[in-house]
Amino acid sequence: MLGKVSLEEAFALPRMREQTERWASLFAVDGHKHAREVTDIAEIRTRYMDEYGVGYQILSYTAPGVQDIYDPEEAHAFAREINDYAAEQTKGKEDRFGCFATLSMHDPTEAAAELERCVLELGFKGALVNDTQRSGRDGDDMIFYDGPEWDVFWETCTKLDVPFYLHPRNPTGTMFEKLWKDRKWLIGPPLSFAQGVGLSMLGMVTNGVFGRHPNLQIIIGHLGEHIPPDLWRIDHWFEDIKKPLGMAAQCKKTIRDYFAQNIWITTSGNFSSPLLQLCMTEVSADRILFSIDYPFEQFEDACTWFDNVELNKIDKLKIGRENAKKLFKLGKYKDSEAQLKR
Amino acid sequence: MLGKVSLEEAFALPRMREQTERWASLFAVDGHKHAREVTDIAEIRTRYMDEYGVGYQILSYTAPGVQDIYDPEEAHAFAREINDYAAEQTKGKEDRFGCFATLSMHDPTEAAAELERCVLELGFKGALVNDTQRSGRDGDDMIFYDGPEWDVFWETCTKLDVPFYLHPRNPTGTMFEKLWKDRKWLIGPPLSFAQGVGLSMLGMVTNGVFGRHPNLQIIIGHLGEHIPPDLWRIDHWFEDIKKPLGMAAQCKKTIRDYFAQNIWITTSGNFSSPLLQLCMTEVSADRILFSIDYPFEQFEDACTWFDNVELNKIDKLKIGRENAKKLFKLGKYKDSEAQLKR
Amino acid sequence: MLGKVSLEEAFALPRMREQTERWASLFAVDGHKHAREVTDIAEIRTRYMDEYGVGYQILSYTAPGVQDIYDPEEAHAFAREINDYAAEQTKGKEDRFGCFATLSMHDPTEAAAELERCVLELGFKGALVNDTQRSGRDGDDMIFYDGPEWDVFWETCTKLDVPFYLHPRNPTGTMFEKLWKDRKWLIGPPLSFAQGVGLSMLGMVTNGVFGRHPNLQIIIGHLGEHIPPDLWRIDHWFEDIKKPLGMAAQCKKTIRDYFAQNIWITTSGNFSSPLLQLCMTEVSADRILFSIDYPFEQFEDACTWFDNVELNKIDKLKIGRENAKKLFKLGKYKDSEAQLKR
Amino acid sequence: MLGKVSLEEAFALPRMREQTERWASLFAVDGHKHAREVTDIAEIRTRYMDEYGVGYQILSYTAPGVQDIYDPEEAHAFAREINDYAAEQTKGKEDRFGCFATLSMHDPTEAAAELERCVLELGFKGALVNDTQRSGRDGDDMIFYDGPEWDVFWETCTKLDVPFYLHPRNPTGTMFEKLWKDRKWLIGPPLSFAQGVGLSMLGMVTNGVFGRHPNLQIIIGHLGEHIPPDLWRIDHWFEDIKKPLGMAAQCKKTIRDYFAQNIWITTSGNFSSPLLQLCMTEVSADRILFSIDYPFEQFEDACTWFDNVELNKIDKLKIGRENAKKLFKLGKYKDSEAQLKR
Repeated sequence: MLGKVSLEEAFALPRMREQTERWASLFAVDGHKHAREVTDIAEIRTRYMDEYGVGYQILSYTAPGVQDIYDPEEAHAFAREINDYAAEQTKGKEDRFGCFATLSMHDPTEAAAELERCVLELGFKGALVNDTQRSGRDGDDMIFYDGPEWDVFWETCTKLDVPFYLHPRNPTGTMFEKLWKDRKWLIGPPLSFAQGVGLSMLGMVTNGVFGRHPNLQIIIGHLGEHIPPDLWRIDHWFEDIKKPLGMAAQCKKTIRDYFAQNIWITTSGNFSSPLLQLCMTEVSADRILFSIDYPFEQFEDACTWFDNVELNKIDKLKIGRENAKKLFKLGKYKDSEAQLKR
Repeated sequence: MLGKVSLEEAFALPRMREQTERWASLFAVDGHKHAREVTDIAEIRTRYMDEYGVGYQILSYTAPGVQDIYDPEEAHAFAREINDYAAEQTKGKEDRFGCFATLSMHDPTEAAAELERCVLELGFKGALVNDTQRSGRDGDDMIFYDGPEWDVFWETCTKLDVPFYLHPRNPTGTMFEKLWKDRKWLIGPPLSFAQGVGLSMLGMVTNGVFGRHPNLQIIIGHLGEHIPPDLWRIDHWFEDIKKPLGMAAQCKKTIRDYFAQNIWITTSGNFSSPLLQLCMTEVSADRILFSIDYPFEQFEDACTWFDNVELNKIDKLKIGRENAKKLFKLGKYKDSEAQLKR
Repeated sequence: MLGKVSLEEAFALPRMREQTERWASLFAVDGHKHAREVTDIAEIRTRYMDEYGVGYQILSYTAPGVQDIYDPEEAHAFAREINDYAAEQTKGKEDRFGCFATLSMHDPTEAAAELERCVLELGFKGALVNDTQRSGRDGDDMIFYDGPEWDVFWETCTKLDVPFYLHPRNPTGTMFEKLWKDRKWLIGPPLSFAQGVGLSMLGMVTNGVFGRHPNLQIIIGHLGEHIPPDLWRIDHWFEDIKKPLGMAAQCKKTIRDYFAQNIWITTSGNFSSPLLQLCMTEVSADRILFSIDYPFEQFEDACTWFDNVELNKIDKLKIGRENAKKLFKLGKYKDSEAQLKR
Repeated sequence: MLGKVSLEEAFALPRMREQTERWASLFAVDGHKHAREVTDIAEIRTRYMDEYGVGYQILSYTAPGVQDIYDPEEAHAFAREINDYAAEQTKGKEDRFGCFATLSMHDPTEAAAELERCVLELGFKGALVNDTQRSGRDGDDMIFYDGPEWDVFWETCTKLDVPFYLHPRNPTGTMFEKLWKDRKWLIGPPLSFAQGVGLSMLGMVTNGVFGRHPNLQIIIGHLGEHIPPDLWRIDHWFEDIKKPLGMAAQCKKTIRDYFAQNIWITTSGNFSSPLLQLCMTEVSADRILFSIDYPFEQFEDACTWFDNVELNKIDKLKIGRENAKKLFKLGKYKDSEAQLKR
């Protein structure tokens, strides 16, 4: 399939090269290759895009990123630097690349202002932020975004009519010690990432964020971070058994409603046909978006899988590009009108 | 379908009635009904079993239970009391009821000894234990069972040839504060239970418990506590990308192998046909066992769903009772030879 | 779910009562009930619709019907009588009922003219016709609609922008003798209906009807009359192996393209969740329409199944009513704006 | 996966080379290649088997074959010639090849005798026969095998404890004229094959063959020849609505029972994951057998698909070889003990 759109695609600042290399060595088979690919914006990437039929990508900053910086000022400055760099690097390449804003999430008003700057001045397509902001004097605390103090931020997202991509972050602090230290192989894609995003996402649902911001659009990756398969159980406890009064006051619709109206899922890093099938049943092809998670995942794995997944053409086109074109109001981009190759 | 076997079915000690009532009021629509049902062993329960075609149940102690007691001696004494009570109450009713041992998990040798007593002297069918043991001077610590010090315990399970059911526990201590306090509606079935069991289960896999005990049989409930839908992603990171050396040394097979050879999943509290379908694809009907999670869930919900789930008769019989009959070496019990009612 | 739309719903002329009773006695448990229900237009039917949440139905003539009359003049006269009767009976009830034209298919021009009369003068929503027209001096022949002589008819469908529902007919003549006489239990829903419609439908595809009429919209019932599950095999032989030259000249797109652009399937008489699931994968929820097949099937069976089928709300609404509202350009009708009941 | 077993694999007699070439030119892209491959027994074939991980094949005669010969004596002589040839050619290669008997089906007693000769004297594994036997003075008639006169034959199958593979045949005679002449692209895999076998298979069910021969084992290819997806509808009409009295007397169990106890399906020529998934749900992985349909289909297409189909290892091993090993009582053969390659 030509003209695919992908949304969870990372880059790093060249000046962070040393940290990038160190980080890459922890998980990548070839750390240098990963560092090279994540530091590149449009050269290596465009070659892959052309080879594998990806017409358009929305870029976002890699981990460790701003959510790992517990000093608020440092975090904010880093976010601005990243945004300016991304804007400059993708200039003139708007037919292939868009950007998600990187945001310091220490202060809701500040985050809202930077998002507004990115969207209105730099033409960004929304924001991609990790599920919690590391914070506190020694970095042992976590800021979630599901309290009422974040309403000013979600209002801005809604007003600007851009989606917000909730992305995983590595566990830190006391929680790290207790849960993950002795089972460290589970940190990251095998388990901790989905547990973290799942908690933040469902925190937003149950703490009424979508009740207060009914038009807010949140994207989560990895085919839904464990939630779509458990929609029955979640819905059953909240709707069939007993919706706690305090929650019911602020979360009036059902979890299934929020997944139908406010939440999108992407295929990033989860190229599983049985799970895609389940997500089509529980969430609808109308709310699923193709993504890769490059360069943590390879274009080849993601695109070969998706191009060959046994699925009718209508839904394949929706997931591969049409849903994204509507959600991000994309005009013409490379190959976007090309016919679906079987 | 007649003669169903169910495995995650709770009871409470009558002397705990006050705590049971208090606890029930937190989540049950009708707390008194819950308290009555969980305190009953064989009267209310047998009526339900007869009405809904359940031929045989294996009983286990409810929460809060022994894993919530951080004083080792108190925990051990409570476990023995529970086991003796269960044995006595089910005496003469062996055609309808079996028991899972309740164990204090402060000390592996002690836990092994109590399991052995329960199986050899009391005729129990295995053990059901919560995913971590609360511990430490102020109850803020957690004991996981995936370290080498637990080998003595797993050896005993294997030697006795009985399965071990890994069951959820409510989060406690610092973790509670950080993650769950401000999103308390997610504690329990909606999210925290699966996160806790998933971590313990995959900790056992990656820390090599099954490498050292290749015949060990572990059961997890709720259609797999989020893991079966993510088997592709877990397997992809460990096998396709890069299996960390330290892990590879002790976890030689793939996650899919362990699910084929060592892990069973039950339907307890997750009566979702799309998820059952996915589990059949990713785990096989040969490793799925019917269960209810009574009295947290209702016989009617579980049995009406399962009896009507659109599934061929061969696999429905396997999931409904034949797998359990083999795993627990059940002989004749009520209705066990009855034909499948459509 | 309220406001469902259903499309394969039969009625009979009161003057045919005797034949209707005789016919009903062949297959219905209670032949009199069937005869009463099929002869009623809006009284019994409206009660069922209200009880089971059907907001709107499109009516069509029952079998045996015009396609079983091998005398052309008699067939045409009977078709006109039926159409006039249906128009008159549904007058003033346009918020609940629409009609499909009944057509004699002995002559393409005549069929086109009657369709035009029904749509333009009587406000009909399209046509429902059996898969072949019985013909010949002794009724032993069959007219298919996939030859070039039918272009004039398909042009009219396209010009009027109304869909054509291809419905089963009982086998007759020599074929009956050879194939069905000694296995008569398979005539009708168990096998012959799908074999007949499948042949006509795929005849239209391979004989180039959609090549010549790219906007033509055909509906088939019973979740696709055996075709969606075999789309892989059909596509494989035509596209992967060798598309016969003669066919390739007139059937330029793939079978999957025609199912994405020209063919709709309904749930009439096939209330199977696994097959619905497969059809969502192979055909898309965007091309599936709820239907009952009343009074051969019961409202209760169809509606209870559909209302309870485990499916996300977006696709359930599409299949239950939104697709039909678009295809038939339905305005407001009873309950059409009602929220989906879970 | 190594050691796969495949069951619908055709060969032709070398002396028929001219007919084979003519026939191959009708449907194969490279008719000469097809003729070469189908005429080969163990040379080309073994290379493919080694390359694609097939450990064992059961061979059967290609079409046009004995069921197309309407002269009974000629048919019988041809069947014996084929069987003797197959036995001779596979001698000494029993670790890689088995044979299905080819049978003239003009006379039940004669067919039974030849089957007995093949199984007891030649070591054959069962029979593969086309769905009807062409017959009559001018070849315009068809013999089905579902009448009581065939009991002597089915008794022999049961007594010998070998399965019977019901394979498609091209339509002939009057039926050809009426149904297929003007839509000839649908003859064969796209439609007529499944319609023919489906009719014969369900004829056997409804005419009571399995009632009279409860241990008879029938295999059908192509993932069930349209029947598994329609099991709900067939069962609904026979069991929920009204089982005709005449049928009920001889067909006491349900269609689902017969699929659980008497019928097997293979993947021959239908390498569709969604349909395999549906068959696992409606029929069970315990009754599905891998097959190719070589040389009409390619080893590469079949084996690459099956090896990569996203399915748990337990069921993949069952479908790929374990079910066949039990059904055909296969001992050790090449690679049969090899581990499943992922």
